[in-house]
Amino acid sequence: MAPLMKQARMRRTITGFSNPTVKYLRSLREKKHRKREGKFLAEGLRLLTDAREGGRLPEMLVMSAARDPHPLLEALENAVEDAGGEIVETPPEILSKITGKDNPQAVAGVFCEFDTSIDKIDRSRAPIWLVAQALRDPGNLGTMLRTGDAVGAGGLILIDDCADPFSVEAVRASMGAIFTQQIAQASWEEFLPWLRSGAGQLVAASLRDARPYRQAPYVAPCFILVGNESRGLPEEYEMACDLRVTMPMRGRADSLNAAIAGAVLAYEVLATLEA
Amino acid sequence: MAPLMKQARMRRTITGFSNPTVKYLRSLREKKHRKREGKFLAEGLRLLTDAREGGRLPEMLVMSAARDPHPLLEALENAVEDAGGEIVETPPEILSKITGKDNPQAVAGVFCEFDTSIDKIDRSRAPIWLVAQALRDPGNLGTMLRTGDAVGAGGLILIDDCADPFSVEAVRASMGAIFTQQIAQASWEEFLPWLRSGAGQLVAASLRDARPYRQAPYVAPCFILVGNESRGLPEEYEMACDLRVTMPMRGRADSLNAAIAGAVLAYEVLATLEA
Repeated sequence: MAPLMKQARMRRTITGFSNPTVKYLRSLREKKHRKREGKFLAEGLRLLTDAREGGRLPEMLVMSAARDPHPLLEALENAVEDAGGEIVETPPEILSKITGKDNPQAVAGVFCEFDTSIDKIDRSRAPIWLVAQALRDPGNLGTMLRTGDAVGAGGLILIDDCADPFSVEAVRASMGAIFTQQIAQASWEEFLPWLRSGAGQLVAASLRDARPYRQAPYVAPCFILVGNESRGLPEEYEMACDLRVTMPMRGRADSLNAAIAGAVLAYEVLATLEA
Repeated sequence: MAPLMKQARMRRTITGFSNPTVKYLRSLREKKHRKREGKFLAEGLRLLTDAREGGRLPEMLVMSAARDPHPLLEALENAVEDAGGEIVETPPEILSKITGKDNPQAVAGVFCEFDTSIDKIDRSRAPIWLVAQALRDPGNLGTMLRTGDAVGAGGLILIDDCADPFSVEAVRASMGAIFTQQIAQASWEEFLPWLRSGAGQLVAASLRDARPYRQAPYVAPCFILVGNESRGLPEEYEMACDLRVTMPMRGRADSLNAAIAGAVLAYEVLATLEA
């Protein structure tokens, strides 16, 4: 009888848009509410499975009443129940309202935000770290997390006033890497002394006194610094780098999208370190 | 007296949100209206200057009443007037409504859509061409145009049901490359015979029977094929490629963002072709 009793205790069905839980969940799409609650939303079975396998479980699991059965969904439900989390079932229209997507995924979860102190970063864990300065677009931020996962980076360090990594858009664009990459937030004044307190090469794409990005002397742990989408990096930050590299620009433009520049550079660093 | 007369004839000031010209301009944010009119919107002095220098002038120039004077803006105004285009001045709030941005640029323009027939592409013009299949995100599409400009590609060929390259989001993300990169739209059934009617190596990132993407035998003109954001490329399309290459995936994910994968590959192809 135990499983049935557990189900009776922990499951709720919500059908009304004005239900307080729905209001709470929708509020997590706004940064001020996320910060107040210390919670964020992530959606999709694949992403929530990545989280589970990485040891992160949602404290609340919200499932569409129109979901198809799936063994991974069952595993997720069981894990959340076993951990004492809450399970809520709701019509797809409400899930759509919560996540702000026309075609909602079958499942979403509420997670506790992680500790993003810079001193939680153990730089020896990985050969590459991505660093973004004043990156304003949450999609770019999520894409950098995804790229970091792909190149085996340890995580993403956010300098100065960046978009919120826990926004729905960043989490979505990260494709699960929000759960596998470490995330830190710091001002430049916190970051630079932290960086210089240990090994670490700071590299930026730059036009100033730069060498070609291919065959540059990258060494691990290599911190790849990418600047704001419209202004780029402040000159002072570029000058603090150990290595400034330049990428070919064969057309009219003089810069790449920030996430693209970071990725092209990260793949070059990876190739050099593994050579 | 001639300049004054010209000004009197061509300039209008619009202050009402319900003005038909404002409605017309706002309607261009929707694809069906763009297609009906054969027109699209582009914003920003830098982007419109790139267009002008590339020989493309807007048929209507919309300027913010709150703009600061700028020699490039003056050059743009003069060029549009000389070409018989229309110049409209409007408060920033209305420009904001037109472009859908909170902080609108000082200027926007209405351009005629270009001919995107595949047979307008002269493949001998450039060593690299980007090809996207069923790319749904207009931001990704614009970013690919921007990357294409950077690597000296000739243009972007859109296969099957892609996002509209003339959408405000794609034009914005292209950072002006919408005016410097050629754009073609075609079905796979149109594209493949066209490709095979001349020289051209079709390359895709793939997990099937693929070789490492570094030091693969790229040759010009190289067509770099990128698939849909969630489904990737259909197997049949991958199999039609001359070369399938694989990029390192050191983390949990098995794929990169489409625009990122295209960029990393394009920079590798560029380095190989220039070596």
